[in-house]
Amino acid sequence: MKITVVAGGVGGARFLLGVKAFLGWDPTGPAPADADDEITAIVNTADDIRLHNLHVSPDLDSCLYATAGIADTERGWGRADETWTVSAELKDYGAEAPWFALGDKDIATHLMRTRMLDAGFPLSAVTEALCAHWQPGVRLLPMTDDRVETHVVVADPDHVAGAGGGSNEYDDVPGEGPSLDPRTVIGSADEPPLVAIHFQEWWIKHQAALQPLAITPIGADLASPAPGVVDAIDAADVILIAPSNPVVSVGTVLAVGGIREALSAARAPVVGVSPIIAGHPVRGHADACLRAIGVDCSAQGVAAHYGARTAGGLLDAFLIADGDGATIDGMRIGHAPLMMRDPQATAQMVAAALDLVDVHR
Amino acid sequence: MKITVVAGGVGGARFLLGVKAFLGWDPTGPAPADADDEITAIVNTADDIRLHNLHVSPDLDSCLYATAGIADTERGWGRADETWTVSAELKDYGAEAPWFALGDKDIATHLMRTRMLDAGFPLSAVTEALCAHWQPGVRLLPMTDDRVETHVVVADPDHVAGAGGGSNEYDDVPGEGPSLDPRTVIGSADEPPLVAIHFQEWWIKHQAALQPLAITPIGADLASPAPGVVDAIDAADVILIAPSNPVVSVGTVLAVGGIREALSAARAPVVGVSPIIAGHPVRGHADACLRAIGVDCSAQGVAAHYGARTAGGLLDAFLIADGDGATIDGMRIGHAPLMMRDPQATAQMVAAALDLVDVHR
Repeated sequence: MKITVVAGGVGGARFLLGVKAFLGWDPTGPAPADADDEITAIVNTADDIRLHNLHVSPDLDSCLYATAGIADTERGWGRADETWTVSAELKDYGAEAPWFALGDKDIATHLMRTRMLDAGFPLSAVTEALCAHWQPGVRLLPMTDDRVETHVVVADPDHVAGAGGGSNEYDDVPGEGPSLDPRTVIGSADEPPLVAIHFQEWWIKHQAALQPLAITPIGADLASPAPGVVDAIDAADVILIAPSNPVVSVGTVLAVGGIREALSAARAPVVGVSPIIAGHPVRGHADACLRAIGVDCSAQGVAAHYGARTAGGLLDAFLIADGDGATIDGMRIGHAPLMMRDPQATAQMVAAALDLVDVHR
Repeated sequence: MKITVVAGGVGGARFLLGVKAFLGWDPTGPAPADADDEITAIVNTADDIRLHNLHVSPDLDSCLYATAGIADTERGWGRADETWTVSAELKDYGAEAPWFALGDKDIATHLMRTRMLDAGFPLSAVTEALCAHWQPGVRLLPMTDDRVETHVVVADPDHVAGAGGGSNEYDDVPGEGPSLDPRTVIGSADEPPLVAIHFQEWWIKHQAALQPLAITPIGADLASPAPGVVDAIDAADVILIAPSNPVVSVGTVLAVGGIREALSAARAPVVGVSPIIAGHPVRGHADACLRAIGVDCSAQGVAAHYGARTAGGLLDAFLIADGDGATIDGMRIGHAPLMMRDPQATAQMVAAALDLVDVHR
């Protein structure tokens, strides 16, 4: 059986452990040598970021580290038995983004990735090399080899109220030229100007506490699916949309030119798993993201947002939590406990999702 | 008083501690706020190397770490209280040059340097920024902002004797195309071919045990002195040649176009300190380097190699160890204990060197 999963970071990683467990595999080890089954994950790369000249791919790494059994399961992200010497030193140097913690083992991965990228290898080839090294059992594909970066439009958090009629505080420094602030400034009234900041600045530095006025995966419309992505969709026996963030994880994958079309045309059924339980995201800041795009933070809201495939949407079926409700024409709705407490519990979710579309091993 | 020092790595660093102590400064702290004196070091950069996409400047860092009081004085190189997580992980990845140890704190410096270089700042500006951060008390100047890399020609250590008539072992793999080995291969007889390897590969990986047939600072002839270098020579009250390796440290600085000429024209006396005591280098592999260029490993050999400034050479005076001898027309020879046991002992060497040319505070 070929299972293709659309996945984001931590939630996607946990879901993949469950898919492996569903197949009877070691969730944190390589695939069995005689495995007939295949798991392919199409992973969001729109929250990738270059920091200190290192190309960081948080979602790919979350999926890799978890499925290879080298993740810190307590902290929920990054490597187990991690040290933090480099980050502490960089902070002391006054380097950029001290709010983005990079462990030392993690940095080694970024050094390898960046070196390969700078040598001309596409991200998909780098990811293949990392998978060959770590043997996560799952084939991890970046959604695209092209640069896509989610930016979030917010009111400038650094704006000094009443500091003048200029568009932002930089205008108030006499004799200064145009601002070198890399953030895009929109508007010029007395109100705080709008700025577009990198997803990670919004998500990590500001903990998604700034109201997002727009969330845009810059470059997605010009991006092509990475090699293998469309094939993995075409060849799948079932396609699962992990309970990842519908906006900044699944939404960005769908925004890459050609992926939504491939999913629409797939012979396999497409089943989503709700990331919202009882009106709350299981983790992360999906509520703020959904609000930004005008979607209700509920199983029904996400179901309607994804839409039924028969009506031009994404899903044939949607698995929601016991106690939640959703009704969408053309979309089968199933219920199951959705807390991914451990790989076995998550395997039950996977089984329920496949049952919904009558796919069996 | 303005003291300008031509320096290599570990030996140069220790010598700089002595120069600071000679002026009554804290050897491992910033210069006194009211200091009238100035110390400028022109530091070898020909053993710089890019590893894992990081620009490593071993000699600049040795000088910086030592004079800023953050060096590991036991080990003799690198940062104090260092950790090694990244290197261990990179080795596990099979990354290049596992023989070149990079500590985690050290890597943070390289990340900062590389980021600034890749953003377009010259190495001299990067070094100035690092000095502004660490306050080593000494003005550290790279010898050049241009790329100069010492390469060493050796018989290929990987050559398999009798493996065929080809020029190296790569030819013996049926069906393989041209070798992708980055090393330059010279010659094609039955004997091991000659290859040119990076200085660090020869020095660290092979511990200078391969006979060097040539040692060449590639690019030096096309390089220009970094900003400040010629000024520091012109403005100096005395110029000291540290007891660094005469070939791969001092020799490479002198090979940069214009530096030898500036030293030759300087109004200040130029005093060298012998790196050879009783026929042996105090540290490192200066004996192998001197042999490669046909210079006897002795105080006399180095004195003759440097030559008297009055005869078109480098030195007005040369300080050699008690018990050693040297005679060169036009070069004053002085004797002193030359073991740099601590900054105070080294300060005595500096005092003796200045005495030799009648320079006094």
